[in-house]
Amino acid sequence: MEKTPLEYDYTPQENPFLKRIYRVIYFSDTKAGKLFDIALLLLIFISTFLVMLETVNFINVKYSGLFFTVQMIITVLFSIEYILRILTIKDKKEYIFSPLGIIDFISIIPFYLSLIFPVLHFFVIVRMLRMLRVFRIFNLADYQQDGRFIVKALKESSRKIYIFLLFLIIFIIIIGSLMFVIEGGRNGFSSIPQSIYWAVVTITTVGYGDISPVTSGGKFLAIIVMLCGYSIIAVPTGIVSSQFRRQSQSGDSCDRCGNGENDKNARFCKICGEKILDK
Amino acid sequence: MEKTPLEYDYTPQENPFLKRIYRVIYFSDTKAGKLFDIALLLLIFISTFLVMLETVNFINVKYSGLFFTVQMIITVLFSIEYILRILTIKDKKEYIFSPLGIIDFISIIPFYLSLIFPVLHFFVIVRMLRMLRVFRIFNLADYQQDGRFIVKALKESSRKIYIFLLFLIIFIIIIGSLMFVIEGGRNGFSSIPQSIYWAVVTITTVGYGDISPVTSGGKFLAIIVMLCGYSIIAVPTGIVSSQFRRQSQSGDSCDRCGNGENDKNARFCKICGEKILDK
Amino acid sequence: MEKTPLEYDYTPQENPFLKRIYRVIYFSDTKAGKLFDIALLLLIFISTFLVMLETVNFINVKYSGLFFTVQMIITVLFSIEYILRILTIKDKKEYIFSPLGIIDFISIIPFYLSLIFPVLHFFVIVRMLRMLRVFRIFNLADYQQDGRFIVKALKESSRKIYIFLLFLIIFIIIIGSLMFVIEGGRNGFSSIPQSIYWAVVTITTVGYGDISPVTSGGKFLAIIVMLCGYSIIAVPTGIVSSQFRRQSQSGDSCDRCGNGENDKNARFCKICGEKILDK
Amino acid sequence: MEKTPLEYDYTPQENPFLKRIYRVIYFSDTKAGKLFDIALLLLIFISTFLVMLETVNFINVKYSGLFFTVQMIITVLFSIEYILRILTIKDKKEYIFSPLGIIDFISIIPFYLSLIFPVLHFFVIVRMLRMLRVFRIFNLADYQQDGRFIVKALKESSRKIYIFLLFLIIFIIIIGSLMFVIEGGRNGFSSIPQSIYWAVVTITTVGYGDISPVTSGGKFLAIIVMLCGYSIIAVPTGIVSSQFRRQSQSGDSCDRCGNGENDKNARFCKICGEKILDK
Repeated sequence: MEKTPLEYDYTPQENPFLKRIYRVIYFSDTKAGKLFDIALLLLIFISTFLVMLETVNFINVKYSGLFFTVQMIITVLFSIEYILRILTIKDKKEYIFSPLGIIDFISIIPFYLSLIFPVLHFFVIVRMLRMLRVFRIFNLADYQQDGRFIVKALKESSRKIYIFLLFLIIFIIIIGSLMFVIEGGRNGFSSIPQSIYWAVVTITTVGYGDISPVTSGGKFLAIIVMLCGYSIIAVPTGIVSSQFRRQSQSGDSCDRCGNGENDKNARFCKICGEKILDK
Repeated sequence: MEKTPLEYDYTPQENPFLKRIYRVIYFSDTKAGKLFDIALLLLIFISTFLVMLETVNFINVKYSGLFFTVQMIITVLFSIEYILRILTIKDKKEYIFSPLGIIDFISIIPFYLSLIFPVLHFFVIVRMLRMLRVFRIFNLADYQQDGRFIVKALKESSRKIYIFLLFLIIFIIIIGSLMFVIEGGRNGFSSIPQSIYWAVVTITTVGYGDISPVTSGGKFLAIIVMLCGYSIIAVPTGIVSSQFRRQSQSGDSCDRCGNGENDKNARFCKICGEKILDK
Repeated sequence: MEKTPLEYDYTPQENPFLKRIYRVIYFSDTKAGKLFDIALLLLIFISTFLVMLETVNFINVKYSGLFFTVQMIITVLFSIEYILRILTIKDKKEYIFSPLGIIDFISIIPFYLSLIFPVLHFFVIVRMLRMLRVFRIFNLADYQQDGRFIVKALKESSRKIYIFLLFLIIFIIIIGSLMFVIEGGRNGFSSIPQSIYWAVVTITTVGYGDISPVTSGGKFLAIIVMLCGYSIIAVPTGIVSSQFRRQSQSGDSCDRCGNGENDKNARFCKICGEKILDK
Repeated sequence: MEKTPLEYDYTPQENPFLKRIYRVIYFSDTKAGKLFDIALLLLIFISTFLVMLETVNFINVKYSGLFFTVQMIITVLFSIEYILRILTIKDKKEYIFSPLGIIDFISIIPFYLSLIFPVLHFFVIVRMLRMLRVFRIFNLADYQQDGRFIVKALKESSRKIYIFLLFLIIFIIIIGSLMFVIEGGRNGFSSIPQSIYWAVVTITTVGYGDISPVTSGGKFLAIIVMLCGYSIIAVPTGIVSSQFRRQSQSGDSCDRCGNGENDKNARFCKICGEKILDK
């Protein structure tokens, strides 16, 4: 029984029936556990999709009744699951206040609140958060190791990326201010924040075109900025790329004990026996 | 006679005349075979190009007669080729239901159908599929190995890319929902699906500008999203880059027997003798 | 007491009181020094943020009085700090004409000038330069090494990037001229500089859409240009990426004596004892 | 006297005066030669810049007289240089029909033609080609080696890039056809070529927004296309990146004799003595 990094290793109740349910809902190493996970995934998907559709006016007008019914059923199922999760473990607090426990709670409560209070526009966001439950299903997947590989690479190079972003932001603010002065507060560059918005849109090569330089001076500055952005984009790519390479080349350091002397093909840390990330 | 990965090694008919035709149309190691391939390539190109031009109104009005004649001739030639392909081999079913066999069939049948039924708008797509026949010509090219190299790199890193896309999609959905709420369902952000469309347009740095934030809050969120997108784009590049390097650095593992211990410059697997991909 | 590359090692005054102040404002290895740096960072941030807000009309109308008061207080504090910086060291000239000394001066003088002369529009830029003081705070951060790592990589590959930019600019000018002729000076392509602006917007994949090809010929050229740009973007990334790798792979060459034979994990140059950049 | 790859090693005339001129205009290893190159660079720059300005209407109206005079002077200078280049060498044909010789000729002839014939709109392009003379100046620069490094990397990976472009183009054509059908020939997607233009604009992340999907189906397809484009962009970067690394890592193969066994730090080929590219 491999533990997952997202899930605490709760102690199950001793009652054999509860223990079996515990095994099904917290793990995916049994057939029932796998089915349970797939069902959960489907419900999350349907539920998220319906919230989206509800915001499309002409669809909502037609099917709001159907939407309500389906959401009610799904929420009730989620509620039952939530209660079972609490019942089958000993240390209930540990689960309730864990990140996943809070997401589980958030994914059911807005529906009940909307029965009492009039539906708030803002609720849409809270109801979309239900989607985050998808991370629970990751016990199921082999993908976990690859996910950890990416996260590790980003974490290792985060300091370099922060530094880069700091320089970038200062550059963007200066460019924004310059552009504000050059375009003379006209043509959409009505204030420095607006000009900074333009600078970000430009340097990241998004280029909506809702604001774009009109004067010759502005266009000239824009050309400089774009060519700079074109060269600068190489930096974060270079950082992450180089990190990826280092990770997949060197013998991995062990995640548990930090031993970095493992062989390149080692599958377990030679110091502490922890399984080593595949690359 | 090297076999290609796209083509099955069909057993030719024993009749010497059919066998010679078989050699010409299925292989490109004879002069006639090469000419045949080049002629095929040309016909495919012309045919695809004409379908495109037909959709341009003012051109079609003028030349629709010419277009019809040329397409008819090409389709008849393709039909003859299709029949010859079937006649010259023993196991006809194997060819007919192979991927290339199906494409060959699809590339001739829409024309005949359009003679019977009125021309359907949707037919354009089916007729464009004829273009896929181009892959048949790859026997001709040395490029095949490089193609396989790229495909291999993408396949090897597909799991990491899937994971990345999953995170990206969840991020996009959350951003889309947030934007829907912040812009209050106005300014083009009329529903969550519309806002998600905007989020994709923004994060991938396409930036049409058909929908763009108008409120200060929306613009601020857009700035955050763009800067994130700018840093995130490094991830797929890093993944593929690192995979390319690994592939071209290590001694290649053999495609047939999986032996990964070949020398860096080995041209044949030392276990099974399979030719090894050049890098 | 580690010296920073941005700051000269000034000799402090011998007066013990001034010496203590010197320690606090020039270094961050005491508690008071750290607090001082954080306070400075906050003031810089607030001050920059206020200049931005001042340019937003409807905000400035309401709060211009408040803005003025806060800016005055911050400028007075900066002035006191500037005077203390001068008083506590022996060689005053060295500081006053150092890059950071000039920035410190520039960050206070525009305010006093604006009291005498009417506020000039152009002043906004000068006042935004105050933001550059943020670099002073870098003594505080461990981030310095990573910053130097990035700067080193960019410097090492600068020659390759210059060459690349030269080719790119010639390519852009030719494309711009071609487009000017093809679109016949209409549709926004009213002159070669305008067309060059379009070419830059296109090749860097910014794509505002304020100018875009209208004729068939123009669109065809645009397709070619975009596909080229798509392939070319790989070059700067490749250059920087490869430089990053080389730097983090090889034993670092020493920044002081240039010795390149240090071991991969060496923390000090084995020739001159200089600390070696972490990667 | 190092020969450059762009310039043939012409045999100079034996007349000592002509020989000295030969040295000045064909090489940059003397003081006069360097001055000559810099003067040439300046003239090319001024001349190109003026052609650009001439296309800006309101400037041309004012200064057309001045522009004509300056262009005449520069063209006369270029003509003298062209004649000297021919006079000072023995094998005149070799120079006249070399790439640089042709560019030199093209950079003077349009001016004289425009004196006889009325100025043609198309001439702008021909006159801009004068800019290509800039490549002549590369003898001057150390940058040549870096330029060759980039060109070599692109050439080595060209086959992989061609393959990639082929797949990309087929993908683009299919997407374009699909979009034409989905949007039903409306909203700017009026023909398959127009839709292909849109597909290129989207996949390369340029995103002008002159054509963008309006129907739900079209937007959905656009989302898929953009996410694909986002992942695919990694491929050319990966190809070139990996090539750069390989080139700068392995001992360089000799450009002249192809010997690939040189040491990593070798500066001359150990087989034929050719200078080896620095990396």
